[in-house]
Amino acid sequence: MNPTASIRYYEDLSVGDKFPTASLTVTEAEIIAFASQYDPQSFHTDASAAQRSVFGRLVASGWHTAALSMRLMVLGEFQLAGGSVGLGVEKLEWPQPVLPGDTLSVVSEIMEKRLSRSKPDRGLVKFRSTTFNQRGEPVQRMAALQIVLCRPAPAAR
Amino acid sequence: MNPTASIRYYEDLSVGDKFPTASLTVTEAEIIAFASQYDPQSFHTDASAAQRSVFGRLVASGWHTAALSMRLMVLGEFQLAGGSVGLGVEKLEWPQPVLPGDTLSVVSEIMEKRLSRSKPDRGLVKFRSTTFNQRGEPVQRMAALQIVLCRPAPAAR
Repeated sequence: MNPTASIRYYEDLSVGDKFPTASLTVTEAEIIAFASQYDPQSFHTDASAAQRSVFGRLVASGWHTAALSMRLMVLGEFQLAGGSVGLGVEKLEWPQPVLPGDTLSVVSEIMEKRLSRSKPDRGLVKFRSTTFNQRGEPVQRMAALQIVLCRPAPAAR
Repeated sequence: MNPTASIRYYEDLSVGDKFPTASLTVTEAEIIAFASQYDPQSFHTDASAAQRSVFGRLVASGWHTAALSMRLMVLGEFQLAGGSVGLGVEKLEWPQPVLPGDTLSVVSEIMEKRLSRSKPDRGLVKFRSTTFNQRGEPVQRMAALQIVLCRPAPAAR
């Protein structure tokens, strides 16, 4: 959690609001380490074998791209009350792979919001987040639904 | 990649086919290590702070559940020709969280298949994969589209 970020309650979010993140650079060693543990396919773990794959070179696992995007969002300025609790992802696409040395950043945009029908202390917010590389090309597009807590009512007098 | 698994080409896959995986057990230390790097929120990284969160206890990041599910699938019997190359995820839900000590396994099912319109050497296969805990409860539901290579034609005489 970013200690300088301000916490946003449901009431603080408006459709169309956009939230950028900082950036990070991913190394070949990190790509191989993640994939060795979670997606051990040679195009993610072995630079020479990857040359003979459909990608033609070593590329990051899409799940690594998703995890790095989450890191950027959690450490960014877009901090939701109650934390970033996903109800579900409606779309997750990797239009092109992340390569060793790529620098990634994310922009999130609020698409829809509504109050919970069952729990009056929270709302549901749909947002889309796009992860870009250093050339401004999208490497991940996600649409997801999150729970966001409402601002607590002031204590009664 | 599982060296004993047989490689399946596009022609080998039928709608309705189901493929189970082996299982793995996730520890509290792994949950904290993954989240510290990729989803640093206190309900994923700090057991005592997690008691005061919406979850009431330490739970795995959904992205950790997704990564562990990928590991099980990549190392399982369901091996696709050309590797497991996702075009996109249409749905990714975490109906309940993964807890320290949970044992996970995945069942994948072929939902649709069609040949690529632009590239005659491959097809597109839609499948859904459900990750279960040791009580048979779903902890992740995913629907995704993958590229699968067609069986190479025999050499001309």
